[in-house]
Amino acid sequence: MELLGGVEAGGTKFNCIVGSDPEHIEAEIRIPTTTPQETLGKVIDFFLPFAKSLKALGIASFGPVDLHPNSSTYGYITSTPKAGWHNADVLGPFRNALHVPTAFDTDVNGAAVGEYRWGAGQGIENLIYLTIGTGIGGGVLASGQPQHGMLHAEMGHLYLPHDRQKDPFKGVCPYHGDCFEGIASGPSMQQRWGISADQLPADHPAWPLEAHYIALALQAYVCILSPERIILGGGVMQQLLLFPLVRADLKTLLNGYINTKEIIEDIDQYIIPPGLGNRAGVLGALALADRLIS
Amino acid sequence: MELLGGVEAGGTKFNCIVGSDPEHIEAEIRIPTTTPQETLGKVIDFFLPFAKSLKALGIASFGPVDLHPNSSTYGYITSTPKAGWHNADVLGPFRNALHVPTAFDTDVNGAAVGEYRWGAGQGIENLIYLTIGTGIGGGVLASGQPQHGMLHAEMGHLYLPHDRQKDPFKGVCPYHGDCFEGIASGPSMQQRWGISADQLPADHPAWPLEAHYIALALQAYVCILSPERIILGGGVMQQLLLFPLVRADLKTLLNGYINTKEIIEDIDQYIIPPGLGNRAGVLGALALADRLIS
Repeated sequence: MELLGGVEAGGTKFNCIVGSDPEHIEAEIRIPTTTPQETLGKVIDFFLPFAKSLKALGIASFGPVDLHPNSSTYGYITSTPKAGWHNADVLGPFRNALHVPTAFDTDVNGAAVGEYRWGAGQGIENLIYLTIGTGIGGGVLASGQPQHGMLHAEMGHLYLPHDRQKDPFKGVCPYHGDCFEGIASGPSMQQRWGISADQLPADHPAWPLEAHYIALALQAYVCILSPERIILGGGVMQQLLLFPLVRADLKTLLNGYINTKEIIEDIDQYIIPPGLGNRAGVLGALALADRLIS
Repeated sequence: MELLGGVEAGGTKFNCIVGSDPEHIEAEIRIPTTTPQETLGKVIDFFLPFAKSLKALGIASFGPVDLHPNSSTYGYITSTPKAGWHNADVLGPFRNALHVPTAFDTDVNGAAVGEYRWGAGQGIENLIYLTIGTGIGGGVLASGQPQHGMLHAEMGHLYLPHDRQKDPFKGVCPYHGDCFEGIASGPSMQQRWGISADQLPADHPAWPLEAHYIALALQAYVCILSPERIILGGGVMQQLLLFPLVRADLKTLLNGYINTKEIIEDIDQYIIPPGLGNRAGVLGALALADRLIS
């Protein structure tokens, strides 16, 4: 059994594990996100006793992050508004302290890799993992590889058709107002309805509206990426009644144009919850490490 | 010099070439698209004299097409409404007659590969080629590879914000009404304004509206794919005044959130016309062949 390390670097806490797969975890810790120096110091202290036995480490980080290996700020969190973390070198301290092969990617690409390796995306080479919660973000695998590019996907920030007569809510995104995240994130639901999403009753009109915005975004993903499966996680998606609503709405929106078995016959297996539940993030980090030695 | 073949399979005509690169074309022919038997027969007759010297053949086809090599209908045009071409085997007749390694992809993936090999996308591994004309379609390279997935990209069919007070036009897409293709293709402009797009004067309000829809679609592509460059071709884009309008509108829509040099400083090099002009399609087919031997 090869020992691996995983770091899910979040804006609130860093989840760290040592293990070889979801069934074999040797050690686990949560460290609050304060300053880079303090937090990264404590995280490294956790891994140091394992440094000699670790085969690889994976870091799945909140962002935006620099994923260009040739860039001078590779492995940095770049333009985040989070105090103290603007242009913070996340990868460097690990490399300097641990001398272990280390993979670095976005938190959502990590989650997509984790679902592909051990979760609900096994064998699915073209996969989207989308999280809908405080924010909306997505990771993308194409031909089994996590996708980067100019930057990385920012799947929550596309603009959707937004009928202001039906839904006059202006949206909460500080950059885009009523982009997808602006009208469908957890905070947008809280602000629109005056109740936290997890308190809204199952028969509330919030849910079909939410499902419609999610289906519109998924329709765009299907047209642009043609994924073979879409995994929907995050706090808002814990309201499981969203799944059948999203599936039906997406089918209506596509209207038979994308004439595949996945959409026409098997949509119940096409849009599904994460297999790793709320551990998708930290196990995703472990899966990034696993990819380095596979 | 290695001799290659290229077939751009279009709904109106098949463009065929034999050569090694854009500067070295040995033979070229256009064959009208009638029935599969007649058209494919004539195309194969054109290539037969070269069969022994061809190193590879590339076919870039109109679609939808089946791109799954393990599928029983690999290389077929599938659900097209075009008479006679529904479930037509395009690849098979070439394989049976020519015995040459043959690549098969969408017309727009071919164009993207061609621009990457010889045109305006050289060295750009994450590239979009979008054509806006009779229809709207796009090809995508990620890490230098043409992207497939469940099906292939259908970049013209996502829904965009459509302000019916400003633009009450209902759209022309038979499947989706006012999707991107429905409100921004050449035929939609013709129908909205009662004049063909190529006849609309440069100061007509059609152009800023068209640029806005294109910018909205590009904003979604940037959020979902994070391409390093976007090439815009097709008949509508021959109105070059669209380029500065689209660039400015996209920057406004992104509003500083995607904080990259490409967007903030170099947007004039980020959104550009094809380097291969209206030969992107057939040279793209040649480039598909070139990839097989490179």
